[in-house]
Amino acid sequence: MKAATSLDEIFLPRSVAVVGSSPKEFYTLSLMMGKLRNHFYPVNPNYQEVHGIKCHASILDIAEPVDYVVLDLPARYVLKTVDECIQKGVKCIHAFTSGFSETGLPEGIELEKQLAALIKGKVRMIGPNCMGIYCPKSGLSFNITSTRIEGHIGVISQSGTFAQAFIHAEKSRNVSVSKVVSYGNAIDLDCPDFLTYMADDPDTHVIALYVEGVKDGGPIRAALEYAASRKPVVALKGGITRQGGRVASSHTGALAGSGETWATLFRQTGVAQVDDFDDLLNTVIALSNCPLPKGNGVSIITYSGGFSVVQSDMCVRAGLEVPQFSPAAVAELREFVPASGTMVGNPLDTWQLFYKYDENEKSLKDVFRIIASEKDVHSILLQFDVIRFMISMWGDKVEERLKVVAERILEGCLYARDEKGKLVIISMFQDPYSENELERKLSMAFKKRCEAEGFPVFPTLNEAVRTVSNIYSYTQIRRGKLPKAG
Amino acid sequence: MKAATSLDEIFLPRSVAVVGSSPKEFYTLSLMMGKLRNHFYPVNPNYQEVHGIKCHASILDIAEPVDYVVLDLPARYVLKTVDECIQKGVKCIHAFTSGFSETGLPEGIELEKQLAALIKGKVRMIGPNCMGIYCPKSGLSFNITSTRIEGHIGVISQSGTFAQAFIHAEKSRNVSVSKVVSYGNAIDLDCPDFLTYMADDPDTHVIALYVEGVKDGGPIRAALEYAASRKPVVALKGGITRQGGRVASSHTGALAGSGETWATLFRQTGVAQVDDFDDLLNTVIALSNCPLPKGNGVSIITYSGGFSVVQSDMCVRAGLEVPQFSPAAVAELREFVPASGTMVGNPLDTWQLFYKYDENEKSLKDVFRIIASEKDVHSILLQFDVIRFMISMWGDKVEERLKVVAERILEGCLYARDEKGKLVIISMFQDPYSENELERKLSMAFKKRCEAEGFPVFPTLNEAVRTVSNIYSYTQIRRGKLPKAG
Repeated sequence: MKAATSLDEIFLPRSVAVVGSSPKEFYTLSLMMGKLRNHFYPVNPNYQEVHGIKCHASILDIAEPVDYVVLDLPARYVLKTVDECIQKGVKCIHAFTSGFSETGLPEGIELEKQLAALIKGKVRMIGPNCMGIYCPKSGLSFNITSTRIEGHIGVISQSGTFAQAFIHAEKSRNVSVSKVVSYGNAIDLDCPDFLTYMADDPDTHVIALYVEGVKDGGPIRAALEYAASRKPVVALKGGITRQGGRVASSHTGALAGSGETWATLFRQTGVAQVDDFDDLLNTVIALSNCPLPKGNGVSIITYSGGFSVVQSDMCVRAGLEVPQFSPAAVAELREFVPASGTMVGNPLDTWQLFYKYDENEKSLKDVFRIIASEKDVHSILLQFDVIRFMISMWGDKVEERLKVVAERILEGCLYARDEKGKLVIISMFQDPYSENELERKLSMAFKKRCEAEGFPVFPTLNEAVRTVSNIYSYTQIRRGKLPKAG
Repeated sequence: MKAATSLDEIFLPRSVAVVGSSPKEFYTLSLMMGKLRNHFYPVNPNYQEVHGIKCHASILDIAEPVDYVVLDLPARYVLKTVDECIQKGVKCIHAFTSGFSETGLPEGIELEKQLAALIKGKVRMIGPNCMGIYCPKSGLSFNITSTRIEGHIGVISQSGTFAQAFIHAEKSRNVSVSKVVSYGNAIDLDCPDFLTYMADDPDTHVIALYVEGVKDGGPIRAALEYAASRKPVVALKGGITRQGGRVASSHTGALAGSGETWATLFRQTGVAQVDDFDDLLNTVIALSNCPLPKGNGVSIITYSGGFSVVQSDMCVRAGLEVPQFSPAAVAELREFVPASGTMVGNPLDTWQLFYKYDENEKSLKDVFRIIASEKDVHSILLQFDVIRFMISMWGDKVEERLKVVAERILEGCLYARDEKGKLVIISMFQDPYSENELERKLSMAFKKRCEAEGFPVFPTLNEAVRTVSNIYSYTQIRRGKLPKAG
């Protein structure tokens, strides 16, 4: 049955009900704000209406057909309600409700068994113990503050926190998702189902996966292989150590499997594996915006000798190279990079060029032109952590001059990416605890300008280095995995 | 000669001159703002006065004695000026000026040789090619925005950026330094001199070291050993890879040495080695505030199952343990941790308890009391990333309720640290690019309240885990290295 049902019916329902709705209930608020607002039915015997919408005592009292039901009510009511949903002809039930096998308690395990038996062949289920679906195209949502902009990143997560985190990153990291699913205990629809669906989904260009374990090892391999053959898949496996595996088991009742088994599975199926959530988010952001690097050569453009040294070490530890530039490039750079307090090489440490706003002077734009033509350089990282110093140096002229600087840098970045096919990432450290409001404002403006041209802006250079390393590893494992274009 | 001079004369001068002073010159501005303002002499033949202070054409024109001179002028004037300083009887010259061996150019290398020969036995020198000294106690400074609060962290850095970064962290990370020195090419005073001095300095309780290399391998071992026998020393070695070493050489002209050689040196001398700048800062922050953990057992208190799993993996990979709690503790926790959507174990995933503001209900305070008594738990990490959710949930009551929540959490943290001797770190993710101003304001208030009680607040749980790992490693290598108390 699973293969026959298109999950389009689930991700793009025509109507939705929340059982356990109330004025403060979370799914009620989320769904009322989106495209399903005119096909939304609150259900709760304790209310006559919710936010001015008629509230039904039971799902069976709703006159219209209901495609999708969210259960947000105590576990003890779940079996009865699911039974009513089946009578009603609902296509999919999402059970937010927890209190099942993840508790580790006999009654929870038993209840989950009964639930699984009840739905089998009658209705599809997401969960229990999960956030369900966020899909800006249809209006399904578990977030009340998001922009609901439709994007191209698909997220499949066994953790609700990580599913939410992709949506919270919308504004601050310029991430737009096509579909997000948090699937919890997965008594019916499971990771392989969602992978296969998103692999075929034309709105999804990259897939981010957080998985703790699967009930059955068979389908996951085929699903990973299929998805990775259609588009990039980046995976974070939770519970790769013995202690992490114990925790995963009480989180979603998953059999975590050994870290080595999963690493091999990902490698064999052409999936990029990353180590933590930041890496997952960053790698997907870069993959959805940038060309793939054609090798492991990185160039760093910075204003700091200390960072040049430490970040070169970090690149090498991460399997990347920081190749010296060709003599011709060094000679060309020496023509306009001041000698004092700089390093004309790779990394290029040239603090003065960050402050060139005069059109008649050479600037970082020219640096990008030279470096982007170096054949051993496949990725270029710009460390732009100088706004604090610009404020000290330029006073009330800082806003106007920074705008000029930004445009010149972007000309260079665009050349490197669009003419030379290089992966370009800008890192801009913004102290999360800073109270300097001018610095914050200018940083945000610079960041948004870069993002408007499609360049990822990362909070730290470390994260940029790790991301290039992850993407380079991905290009290595996918060799021969993806079908040739055309 | 080196051993005979107390560096107190250098860090605590009675008077200071800047050669190359001007109204916009950086050291002029820094020094005018601090305790040396009444003993500060600008020197520049092109000015009669600078900011209303008489400006001298030469150091020799100053009537009063001058202890300390900053050179901020082109390299070609350095030899003549140094010669005048020697005539004047200056005790220490700090050469900010670059253009010496770090350029790799023959003329720079030659100039550095001449400079070294000129000063030998006549005047002490810091640099060239460095930021020099920041010492709130004396008023020496290379920063114009700092609070100048006197603290207990000593910083020795071959990189100016990293030296500045400790000062920039003053407000945002609650860091206060005793003395910072950025020493660049180190033609006279070098890393071992500063280590020995800070080892004996009663104002310095912890030393942070960034080193790229030393001219001579001999003195560094003795200095590291001496310093580490007196107080904790945390070191970041730049240039541990071949490519990083190449960059270090053009940064400060240092012979980087192999990564393995340095790792062995640090281990043998009882110095904690870390991998990047964030680790250096974080480890020093924790060491200057917290008791040393008595083992590698960590407990994490969180609101997220996904983070529980991933962070357990991260702990184990970092050489830590996430031990299961005793049956008695689990039973006690089960009495008040709701069963639904939580995990009663280690990590403890209990989102509901983060929202307990009613004095009559049990809260995270009680969680701390129970966990702190577990003998296998040596460090406790609280992941407090819930302010965004509190705003959604509590509306205009959020500020008042968050205050109550903070006080109850702090009662628990204080008990764990002061009664039970546990290392407690709070992590509070603040999206650096967030534009939610209420969230920012509440986060800052919570953070400052925790810091006021001496608890480190870290931007991410990852950084907290890495720091506990670094500190635990430190406790292991220092066994038998530090003298017994008394």
